[in-house]
Amino acid sequence: MADFSKTATGRGYNAPMRFEADIDDCEVVGKLPSDLDGAFFRVGGEWYYPPLSPDDAPLNSDGFISSFRFKSGKVDFHNRWIHTHRFEEQRKARRQLYGNYRNPYTDDPSVRDPLHPNLRTVSNTAPVVHAGKLFSLKEDGLPYQIDPNTLATKGTWDFQGKWKSQTFAAHPKIDPLTGEMIALGYEATGLLSDDVFIYTIDKSGSVKREVRIKQPYVSLIHDMAITHKHIILPFGGYVTSKERLAEGKVHWGWDQTKPSYIGVLPRDGDAKDLRWFKGPERCMMHVFNAHTEGNKVILYAPFYDSNFFPFFPPIDGSPWNPAKARAFIRKITLDLDSKSDGWQEEILWPTQVVDLGKVDPRVVSLQSRYLYTSYSDASKPYDRDASGPGAPARTNNSYMRFDIATGKVESLFAGPTHNLQELSFVPRGRGEEGVGYIVGVAANYAEMRSELIVADAQRLGEGEIARVILPFRLNSQVHGVWADAKELPFK
Amino acid sequence: MADFSKTATGRGYNAPMRFEADIDDCEVVGKLPSDLDGAFFRVGGEWYYPPLSPDDAPLNSDGFISSFRFKSGKVDFHNRWIHTHRFEEQRKARRQLYGNYRNPYTDDPSVRDPLHPNLRTVSNTAPVVHAGKLFSLKEDGLPYQIDPNTLATKGTWDFQGKWKSQTFAAHPKIDPLTGEMIALGYEATGLLSDDVFIYTIDKSGSVKREVRIKQPYVSLIHDMAITHKHIILPFGGYVTSKERLAEGKVHWGWDQTKPSYIGVLPRDGDAKDLRWFKGPERCMMHVFNAHTEGNKVILYAPFYDSNFFPFFPPIDGSPWNPAKARAFIRKITLDLDSKSDGWQEEILWPTQVVDLGKVDPRVVSLQSRYLYTSYSDASKPYDRDASGPGAPARTNNSYMRFDIATGKVESLFAGPTHNLQELSFVPRGRGEEGVGYIVGVAANYAEMRSELIVADAQRLGEGEIARVILPFRLNSQVHGVWADAKELPFK
Repeated sequence: MADFSKTATGRGYNAPMRFEADIDDCEVVGKLPSDLDGAFFRVGGEWYYPPLSPDDAPLNSDGFISSFRFKSGKVDFHNRWIHTHRFEEQRKARRQLYGNYRNPYTDDPSVRDPLHPNLRTVSNTAPVVHAGKLFSLKEDGLPYQIDPNTLATKGTWDFQGKWKSQTFAAHPKIDPLTGEMIALGYEATGLLSDDVFIYTIDKSGSVKREVRIKQPYVSLIHDMAITHKHIILPFGGYVTSKERLAEGKVHWGWDQTKPSYIGVLPRDGDAKDLRWFKGPERCMMHVFNAHTEGNKVILYAPFYDSNFFPFFPPIDGSPWNPAKARAFIRKITLDLDSKSDGWQEEILWPTQVVDLGKVDPRVVSLQSRYLYTSYSDASKPYDRDASGPGAPARTNNSYMRFDIATGKVESLFAGPTHNLQELSFVPRGRGEEGVGYIVGVAANYAEMRSELIVADAQRLGEGEIARVILPFRLNSQVHGVWADAKELPFK
Repeated sequence: MADFSKTATGRGYNAPMRFEADIDDCEVVGKLPSDLDGAFFRVGGEWYYPPLSPDDAPLNSDGFISSFRFKSGKVDFHNRWIHTHRFEEQRKARRQLYGNYRNPYTDDPSVRDPLHPNLRTVSNTAPVVHAGKLFSLKEDGLPYQIDPNTLATKGTWDFQGKWKSQTFAAHPKIDPLTGEMIALGYEATGLLSDDVFIYTIDKSGSVKREVRIKQPYVSLIHDMAITHKHIILPFGGYVTSKERLAEGKVHWGWDQTKPSYIGVLPRDGDAKDLRWFKGPERCMMHVFNAHTEGNKVILYAPFYDSNFFPFFPPIDGSPWNPAKARAFIRKITLDLDSKSDGWQEEILWPTQVVDLGKVDPRVVSLQSRYLYTSYSDASKPYDRDASGPGAPARTNNSYMRFDIATGKVESLFAGPTHNLQELSFVPRGRGEEGVGYIVGVAANYAEMRSELIVADAQRLGEGEIARVILPFRLNSQVHGVWADAKELPFK
């Protein structure tokens, strides 16, 4: 019996969702573009049973996937739990068996298995679509394959046995020119290992290359970037140890004395060709894009000054510092000709903190002009009085397109009681960067419901084209992806 | 595409629900009684597409059924649309095709069929369980059989061709001693007909008796009562006509000049044995119970002084009068020895308006002591400020047990932001009246969600035993029923 009344999980807007739902022909305000044929998939976490400990990280909640299937001017919605090994075990036991975030030593003895930490994955981070398959990912386990129509979980996927890492990080990159997917697994050979395996998977879904490298220190390589020549591996600050796991702590703590690193590996190179650049304290969670110009790699990324996650606290006992948990759009130049192991960094929009971002997937690995992200536009109103319980102190109220060439920002204000989750880019037209739609989910605290916004990516300033109204609150999304009709076997 | 933005349907808490959901192992506060093995089914309406006219009655919305399946101290929730003929036709057309409440002349020409008005039924009024089957009912059509596990619609049911009425009213009564179900259909031979067919269906589900009668005037016989000797048929005030249907109006209007009637038919009698008693203006929607004492029939019913439904307006053009739309617990005595066609009426609790009520199903047809209903206890607080959009001006905040023998009221306050829907009685123990549980759904406007309350029917004053927390707003229930595990083929 699920009793959340005594736990630290949210209430009000953030209360556990706990249901699977289907909506055919959703309510829509405005008119959906008739050329939208495909689906927006989003993955996040939801506690099925309350966490065992109040110290646990929200990132440890059970994987939950939603889809908005657009076709013929209508949209259908579905959501389902991701039936991981762990989820099935807990459903059988009718209670939470697994303990703190990526710490198997805190698990119930009936399932405790530190030698196979990937059995603990909740697969709650990101959907990815490649070679006709839809996967849900989390960096501590293998991908789970998901049926794109029913959202039923089909089981883990190891690429016909060719994926040798125990883990698969949540942000593989797909080369729009070759169709290849470049992906990595860190802690690849087991809990706390410094092994990182990097794979190139061809457009048919077969593993083509494997490179095995070591990290300077064991840390999370959450995201990565690719250029047409290089693979970029950023990380920094988060540390773990056998001791902290033995103490029952969550996997990561923050060590402000640790340098950040960005690895650059030629796509046709081997471990010996890897070069690590070294930088100051940085929390490197996500990237926008990268490209190679001669012997320089240019990386655009919304890196944080320091630790973003309060639930991965500093290991020196100091309090989490929200003032340093701010991300800016950074342009990082890695000069492969340089003798120095440092990099050049420029903040492109120093006055504005931004959040999770995307580029047009057709320019991934290539020089790109536009970055898309959400942010909190302080010039816009927030009607907290009209908002229901659980509304936050501030909201990400706007989506924006940042023009690298001009520094110009065009933005869309979602509403005075709205908070935006990560957007996705829907490419349209003949391949010109930026032609397409932005789709993303907004929380509406006044109506205690979620709404999907569809906007013209070239006309964000004109407001949305349509808004899909859900009759309930959606769970907290981590990442999402758009899949065109031709990319998956949709019914 | 469903666009509700321009319609008169509710928003906020009352916004269209539009989704089907499943929750295994619902969140529960408190501890569910381990002897609860069965399900609480509830039926109501939800617009799948917006109504064609703002004048339409909410009672014309599409049937929607929910279940709370209790077993082994846990509860699972499901809800589904009822796939009536009409629902399927509209889903195919992807728009609302059917017009105003029980007026086929307002339907789209593609489906208009005044000769078969029962094809228009939305089956949105009440679930009933008999002879191992679960049905959803509405008085303008045949029952739809529902799978008690999946809530899938199995089609209409006409009792092996023996049910000859085109309609089946939503409140058949089940005799706890014989297992018989007594049921009626009015407008039995077609739109506007004054034919009423009354059936006795034995405990195996076979039609045993049919009696065909005429009404004094065509009006809705929404509910009925049975005693161990008599069938009781109350109605009053609502009228219809070919003219009002031709004008495109909803089926019923209120005629304050019309008398109310209560028919008394011996259970073993024929049409010639029917006796109509006649009374003043009354809106006779629901009954609690009735019994026969010698040659007197005693009926307990929460009848209204006048028209309860604003959307069935007075035919004389006068405004709907909320002050007269109030129900009290009435004791009505029908003396079969009397030469007069009038009845005696006593209001048992004149200071308190009540709402939909129930008795312990083991005393239906017999002399009963306890009446259970919800009401608005003005001594309790209503925190409208803490409530979200769509919260009403006042709430039914309490369930109560009324003791006919002593006039004593014991009540349970659901909360300062709560509004109660109809309760159901769950019998327990060896058959003593009143031993069991009360279950019912509350709207919680603060959290914008619904909650199922489980209380000991003998200890309402001590508060609930447990509360099942749903993570969303439920649709507006009309009626509900408890089915014990042995009554239906539960998985």
